[in-house]
Amino acid sequence: MAMESLRQFVVALSAAAAVGFVCIIFVLRWVLHYKEGLAWDGGLAEFNWHPVLIVTGFIFLQGIAIIVYRLPWTWQCSKLLMKFIHAGLNLVAFIFAVIAMVAVFDFHNAAKIPNMYSLHSWLGLMVVTLYCLQLVLGVGMYLIPVTPVSWRAAFMPLHVYSGLLLFSSAIAVALMGITEKLIFGLSNPKYKDSPPEAMFVNILGVLLVVFGALILWIATHTSWKRPADQTSHTLHSNGGGEDNTKVGPALSQLSDGDDAEVSGDVRRRNNKLDD
Amino acid sequence: MAMESLRQFVVALSAAAAVGFVCIIFVLRWVLHYKEGLAWDGGLAEFNWHPVLIVTGFIFLQGIAIIVYRLPWTWQCSKLLMKFIHAGLNLVAFIFAVIAMVAVFDFHNAAKIPNMYSLHSWLGLMVVTLYCLQLVLGVGMYLIPVTPVSWRAAFMPLHVYSGLLLFSSAIAVALMGITEKLIFGLSNPKYKDSPPEAMFVNILGVLLVVFGALILWIATHTSWKRPADQTSHTLHSNGGGEDNTKVGPALSQLSDGDDAEVSGDVRRRNNKLDD
Repeated sequence: MAMESLRQFVVALSAAAAVGFVCIIFVLRWVLHYKEGLAWDGGLAEFNWHPVLIVTGFIFLQGIAIIVYRLPWTWQCSKLLMKFIHAGLNLVAFIFAVIAMVAVFDFHNAAKIPNMYSLHSWLGLMVVTLYCLQLVLGVGMYLIPVTPVSWRAAFMPLHVYSGLLLFSSAIAVALMGITEKLIFGLSNPKYKDSPPEAMFVNILGVLLVVFGALILWIATHTSWKRPADQTSHTLHSNGGGEDNTKVGPALSQLSDGDDAEVSGDVRRRNNKLDD
Repeated sequence: MAMESLRQFVVALSAAAAVGFVCIIFVLRWVLHYKEGLAWDGGLAEFNWHPVLIVTGFIFLQGIAIIVYRLPWTWQCSKLLMKFIHAGLNLVAFIFAVIAMVAVFDFHNAAKIPNMYSLHSWLGLMVVTLYCLQLVLGVGMYLIPVTPVSWRAAFMPLHVYSGLLLFSSAIAVALMGITEKLIFGLSNPKYKDSPPEAMFVNILGVLLVVFGALILWIATHTSWKRPADQTSHTLHSNGGGEDNTKVGPALSQLSDGDDAEVSGDVRRRNNKLDD
C-alpha cells in the first residue's frame, strides 16, 4: 500500500474506531445514567441489555469483522487465520444479538407486553435470522476444505453484498429501536419535549450512522484491499474470490466473472504450494 | 450483455419495479383507507402527504434514478441524455422530499407539536440536505462542460458511494418514520395490539427494505453496467469514471485509481471525436 493511501486508511480506521467506541460509551451511559442500569431480572434493567449488546456486538463487532481483512498489519498473517478471525467476530456478534433478543422477550413476557408486533421486531428478527444463514453458508463455503473452488468464487459476490446489506440493515433496525424506546421510555417530560436523555440518544443514533458510513467506506475502498499472498499459502489461502491477485477494485468481490476467474487461476497454480 | 445475464437483469428489474409499485399502492391505501386521506389543510390529511411523497419520490424515484444507466434499452441513447435523465429524476425526488418536509412542518405548527425533536427528523433533514449537496456537486461535476476531467474521475468514487449511502439512509429514515406514525397514530387499539393497519404498514416497511435491497443489487452488479459508447460521443460522453471502457466491476466507480485512469486515457483519445 502506498504511503499516502496508508495514511488515508489510518485516518478512516481511526475515525471508525473512535466513533465506534464513543457509540459504546454512549449506550452504556444511556442505560447506566439515564435508565435503570443492567441486571437479569425480567425488568427494565434486563431490557437494557438489548441496546448494549446490539451496539457493542451486532454493530461494533460486526463492523470490525467486515474490515478485518483491510488491516495492513494483518497482511503477513495467513488468510486462513484471518478467515477464522472474520468468522469468529461474526459469531460473537451473532451470540450478542441472540442474547439481546432473549433479554427483550424476557422483559416483554414479565411485563405482559406482546412480542413481535412492531416493524422493528419484524425486521430485527429477519436480519438476525439472515445473519445466521450468512454465517453458516460462509463457514460452509470458505472454511470447509472440501468446498469446490468454483462454488467459492461463484458465491463470493453474494457473500459480500449480503454482508454489507445485513450490516446496514442492523443499523437501520437499531435506529428504529432507539425511536421506539425514546417514545415509550420518556413520559414526563416526553420525547417531544426534548429532555437531555432524548438529545443524548439522538446523538447516539447519528453516531451509529456515521460509524456505518465509515465501515462501508473502508470496506468498499479499492486500494485498501488485502493483496494476494505471494509467498505463504495455506489450504484456504485462495478460497473463492476473496483474495485478488492485484490491488483491484474493492467491490470486485461483487463482480461475478473476472476476479473470480483470476482468483481461480492463481489458486490452481498455488495449490501446489498448499500444505 | 449475454442472454443469460440479460434474463437475470430483467428478472431483478421486474422484481424491483413490482415491489416499488406495491410500496406506492400500500402507502396510498394506508393514507386513503386507514388514515384521513390527502389534503393541504394543516391537519392530519396534510401530514399524510409526507409518507406518500417520501415513498413515491424520495425512495421509488431515487431508486430508479440510481439504476437508470443499467437499462440495456437506453444504451443506444447518448450518455449526456442519460445523465440528464439521472439528474432530472434525482431533482424530482428532491422536490418531493422538500414538499414532504413542508407538509410535516405545517402540520406540526398547526397542531402545536414541536419540530425537529426526534432522531427521525434529525437524520431525515441530514439526508435531504446531503442529497441536495450531492445533486449540486453532481451537476457541477458531470453536466457542466468546463469541469476538468481529472476532477470528474477523482470525484466519481465518492459520488457513487454517497448516492448508495443516501438511498439506503432514506429508507432507514422512512422505517423510523413508520415506527413513529404507528405509535402516535394508533390509540384504540394501539400498535402493540396489532390492528390490521399496524400489520399492513409493517408489511410496507418490509417491502421498502426489499425494494432497497433489489436496487442496491442491480446498482452493484458487474455485468449489468452500461458499456462505454464506442461509436457515438458527445461533449459529456466520457465524463468522469462513470462510463468504463470495459464491462468491468460494477462498483469500480468506487475505486480511486485504475478505472479512473483508464477512463481518463480513453477520454483523452475520444476528445478528438467530441463535438
